[in-house]
Amino acid sequence: MVLGAAESAVLAFDVGGTDLKAGLVDTAGNVLGLRRRATPHDPLRPGEAILDAVEALASEFAAEFPAHPAKAACIVVPGIVDSDTGVGIYSANLGWRNFPFGEKAAQRLGLPVSFGHDVSTAAEAEFRFGAARDFRNVVVMVVGTGIAAAVISDGYPVRAGGFAGELGHALVPDPDGPGHTILEAVGSAGAIARRYSDKAGTPRAGAREVLERATAGDALAARIWADAVDALAFSLSQCVSIIGTEAVVVGGGLAEAGEGLLQPLRSRLDELLDFQRRPIIMRAQLGQDAGLLGAAMRARALLPAAKAASGTGTGR
Amino acid sequence: MVLGAAESAVLAFDVGGTDLKAGLVDTAGNVLGLRRRATPHDPLRPGEAILDAVEALASEFAAEFPAHPAKAACIVVPGIVDSDTGVGIYSANLGWRNFPFGEKAAQRLGLPVSFGHDVSTAAEAEFRFGAARDFRNVVVMVVGTGIAAAVISDGYPVRAGGFAGELGHALVPDPDGPGHTILEAVGSAGAIARRYSDKAGTPRAGAREVLERATAGDALAARIWADAVDALAFSLSQCVSIIGTEAVVVGGGLAEAGEGLLQPLRSRLDELLDFQRRPIIMRAQLGQDAGLLGAAMRARALLPAAKAASGTGTGR
Repeated sequence: MVLGAAESAVLAFDVGGTDLKAGLVDTAGNVLGLRRRATPHDPLRPGEAILDAVEALASEFAAEFPAHPAKAACIVVPGIVDSDTGVGIYSANLGWRNFPFGEKAAQRLGLPVSFGHDVSTAAEAEFRFGAARDFRNVVVMVVGTGIAAAVISDGYPVRAGGFAGELGHALVPDPDGPGHTILEAVGSAGAIARRYSDKAGTPRAGAREVLERATAGDALAARIWADAVDALAFSLSQCVSIIGTEAVVVGGGLAEAGEGLLQPLRSRLDELLDFQRRPIIMRAQLGQDAGLLGAAMRARALLPAAKAASGTGTGR
Repeated sequence: MVLGAAESAVLAFDVGGTDLKAGLVDTAGNVLGLRRRATPHDPLRPGEAILDAVEALASEFAAEFPAHPAKAACIVVPGIVDSDTGVGIYSANLGWRNFPFGEKAAQRLGLPVSFGHDVSTAAEAEFRFGAARDFRNVVVMVVGTGIAAAVISDGYPVRAGGFAGELGHALVPDPDGPGHTILEAVGSAGAIARRYSDKAGTPRAGAREVLERATAGDALAARIWADAVDALAFSLSQCVSIIGTEAVVVGGGLAEAGEGLLQPLRSRLDELLDFQRRPIIMRAQLGQDAGLLGAAMRARALLPAAKAASGTGTGR
């Protein structure tokens, strides 16, 4: 039983707003097969359309790798997710509300299926295998078009029924006036691009271009970039004060700026904090595959051998 | 063994900035003896002075209740606390730094000793027995002269080595100008009294008096009260976005305003949140004894029968 489980392959599906990635992953973590498809968007049956693609991909893997039948699967999706019940509560981009992914996928695939949030699952992979593996109180922040985050406290992922980690919608001071706005509207790569283009009256530049212009002496670009850093640091200061965050892992497109982002972020956060300890701020290590690796980890946790082992970290 | 443990009394010590409360508590939760002393302040040996008082009180209980020998003890203190190692890391009011309370108290008392944070421990009592017992994602906020908080996520207290729950030092918009200040400087009972007196040019009024004046039509008092509510709601909105808080328990002196505080706090928080779920906001139930009850709960968790039982909730 233990050997059988140890030799089992699992199916991992990472459903993004644009791409759907799928992998058949063996016990050693080798990805035997990797597929990337455009994520199906079907306004009438948004959840079922995803499962159609999942089922087709599972059949392809079964035909291509008959010696490695999958023993479990995991699907991770964006939006608000209840991983305990397997329900996709809400996705603004993909359109479902309260769709029972876990239950329906298990019926279609005939396998035990784990279900989770894409960023939380990628963050758990960073926590187990990547940049955050030496820490117990971690915020993993994925900064791209929007901002998503996962919170790990005292070594355990905080789920709160899918409502934890909505850092993109946390309040920050509004750099364009009195009052406040949300982090995603100032600190995301999307916001940097939009705010610069709007104020400069130029066609849309990417966040990377705004940073290049700031480095080259463009005062407006420098201000937009500083606003983003201020907002990110403000939200991280809240994490430190509320949950004692000791390590921050930054992923997503904006993290490609590397120290051009992380160094000013450290300085600004240091200014905002008082007696609190300063979290270590570092870049994500696992890159674009973190979600898929995390999904494989969650699928494997469903198998008997993994269940018997302690510290899988995908649940309590 | 189980019966012996079940019949055991425990010692509970709640060390506050002003008072030190001590109780001998039997298995049924009855407080056999209750003492209240002025908290000793000794700038040269601040930690040892506390333990002198603890040891003297333990001797008094032993002499008075010879049929109920204590089998374990718990000391809870303010400041930054590492409950895992039993170290009082820092107390601004009482003066210690890195004092090993747990180890030294165990030597002096000859008993197993648990050590914890006063507000966290009171919050755990509210979570186990009081207002928050039906919820798994809770913030317990004690609003008095200052503001302290405890965080419970997915049913477990978040400790982060003593650095969680520093809500009083979380950033909030500064009502007196651009930029930001900390929650404690606007939202605490102490801040309400100080800000009103400073602006009105009157002798110091208490927070209760400021609320009375606001209710009677004093515009300045109403503004100061609204500023406090705004700041508290802002910090709670951060908790909701970061850790998906579903219930907020408000204790401390300011909670005595009851619905005069809670109703505007609910309205303001509702305005600040977007798609996030609204936490239930309620008043603490256990009152001034929550810390002592929580300490007794923690002490009892050290006993063999309690250790064998699941779900004591005082550790993982």
